[in-house]
Amino acid sequence: MRKDSMKLVTKEWHFQLALNAFVNRGYGKAESEDMARLCEEAAVHGIHSHNLIKALHLDDLFGSRVGGTRPNAEVLKRPSRFATAEKWDAQAKLGPSVGWSAIERCMEMADKLGVGIVTIDNAWHYLWGGAYVLAAARRGYFAYTNCTAMLAEVAPHGGKHPALGTNPHSWALPTEPVLGFPILVDWATSMMAMGRIQQLQREGMELPKGVALDEQGEPTTDPAKAKALLPFARHKGFGLGLLNELFAAWIGGNLPTQRGQITRAINPVQEKRLCTFFFQVIHPDAITGGSYAQGRTLEENLRSIVQDIKGHGNQDVLLPGELEARHAELTREKGGLIFTEAELMELREIERGLDYEL
Amino acid sequence: MRKDSMKLVTKEWHFQLALNAFVNRGYGKAESEDMARLCEEAAVHGIHSHNLIKALHLDDLFGSRVGGTRPNAEVLKRPSRFATAEKWDAQAKLGPSVGWSAIERCMEMADKLGVGIVTIDNAWHYLWGGAYVLAAARRGYFAYTNCTAMLAEVAPHGGKHPALGTNPHSWALPTEPVLGFPILVDWATSMMAMGRIQQLQREGMELPKGVALDEQGEPTTDPAKAKALLPFARHKGFGLGLLNELFAAWIGGNLPTQRGQITRAINPVQEKRLCTFFFQVIHPDAITGGSYAQGRTLEENLRSIVQDIKGHGNQDVLLPGELEARHAELTREKGGLIFTEAELMELREIERGLDYEL
Repeated sequence: MRKDSMKLVTKEWHFQLALNAFVNRGYGKAESEDMARLCEEAAVHGIHSHNLIKALHLDDLFGSRVGGTRPNAEVLKRPSRFATAEKWDAQAKLGPSVGWSAIERCMEMADKLGVGIVTIDNAWHYLWGGAYVLAAARRGYFAYTNCTAMLAEVAPHGGKHPALGTNPHSWALPTEPVLGFPILVDWATSMMAMGRIQQLQREGMELPKGVALDEQGEPTTDPAKAKALLPFARHKGFGLGLLNELFAAWIGGNLPTQRGQITRAINPVQEKRLCTFFFQVIHPDAITGGSYAQGRTLEENLRSIVQDIKGHGNQDVLLPGELEARHAELTREKGGLIFTEAELMELREIERGLDYEL
Repeated sequence: MRKDSMKLVTKEWHFQLALNAFVNRGYGKAESEDMARLCEEAAVHGIHSHNLIKALHLDDLFGSRVGGTRPNAEVLKRPSRFATAEKWDAQAKLGPSVGWSAIERCMEMADKLGVGIVTIDNAWHYLWGGAYVLAAARRGYFAYTNCTAMLAEVAPHGGKHPALGTNPHSWALPTEPVLGFPILVDWATSMMAMGRIQQLQREGMELPKGVALDEQGEPTTDPAKAKALLPFARHKGFGLGLLNELFAAWIGGNLPTQRGQITRAINPVQEKRLCTFFFQVIHPDAITGGSYAQGRTLEENLRSIVQDIKGHGNQDVLLPGELEARHAELTREKGGLIFTEAELMELREIERGLDYEL
């Protein structure tokens, strides 16, 4: 972001705006607060792709406007034979409420049992998976989540037609005491997001090679012709994206190409159009070996390893999660959430809409 | 492999050869059998990079020839407060013995508790991680392993100097009843293996761009000048490779650039030069939701999802693990293990060496 276009808003104003916007759409106060908290976390960490503006856009396309979410839905717990694993039916509840509860429950199970898993069926978009795992890593845990994305936009490696979601994976590790921030490995399994392709189209730019296929399944560098995204690293990204679809097959997902095809009319009761989530937390005591070279403590060992990786001429390397942490630091320094000028205009637009609608 | 260069050997001959070769190097019968089993699995699945020839090469470089392994070492179990997680000290035992035991123990824990984790310190190379997770997936489990590779050959994204291993990840899923084979997502986190670069050098070929850096940390396409591998997909592959180094930081690993620097002389007791392993098995009952669209069974749901991904013009897509499964099928048809002519010559050489040495 160019510095001259950085605009500040207070956290309080932003939280209230997000809360009001979702309450105004018929959601309950608690679930709207959970959404506001997620949007705040995204803004704090500079995740422009999954902030409040995106959240409302998703709700337009897949949520309250089309019957894709169920305001005030209660999450049901299905029976599970294992104390380490819970199975939830989110009943189309707003995603962040489910995500925050799930990562919390995983930590509780991990405290008792070393590891906790929550799988979630009939789940609506949880926006930024990184937020949930970061919350757990800040409290000292190893955390992981994957989910199926709402739309099938990615062609399998060697294929022509989009049949997988952009299916992200997010890991966060409790490195804050040593590095000052949690390591966060967090990305979608496509080369590029569809939103970025649309942005390049607006700017009259070409796509890099190997990013997208056209209607006929042929490679294209014309953003206007892009109909399918390609997975990153060929079969490697495809394999990672496929994992989410297969976890979904067990959890309760339906055909990827039908996911997100939500209107009340084409969504009879026996069909399923929503996502699945997988959350896992491991307690650090479950994997801390305790025997480190040179008699180091765990913290000293971790620091030495990271220094080794960033040594030998690698001092300019950015660790995963470092950019997000720097943005959070900048947010603290500035004393408010940072948006672009265009984003701020949209936020003001949302505010005006609320004045009118409320 | 060109068909005219395919050579067959019997499983029995190969197993005996592997067993004798390792016993001849001072290893015990049981651990040599575990190694032979691993080499057989690699050969069955067409994993030329981690077969018996590679195993002996690794033992030359890092094993019995230089004091890197401890023949007949006993694996110690460290105390753990959680019944879901065991912590082992492999004491430099031959890797496959440790890997086979670990995946077995993970399954036992998963049967009781839904999930089982074994982390392993002071671990020697386990060769092909895919073998262990495949074994668990064939028995109905979700299995995952990662490890630190013996040498630091990969530069971090944005860096110049190799400071991470090729650090593989391996997932296998119990899809055999539906697809005929387990899905296997299994690869290193570098763009290309160092062995492949050396092969291109022998053949006088250039490297593709973005695969390697030279001594000064600059990109090179000359295989003779390649000193560092690059991670796949830029920061994404780097993040995945870094995860293994950080898991290792907790488990008990030492500096990545010192790993594998094994000679008796430079390996005092307080130093640590070996790898770490992470194994995890999830019982399918821990994540099976049970509610599928159209009243499908789990198997029908899985089949429908895979058909959706391979439909719409994607029929030529190879699923992860499919090539390995086809090679295993070819092995069955031919009634023996398939090697190249050059590999068979090496195996005969190993056999002759044994005649002489035994």
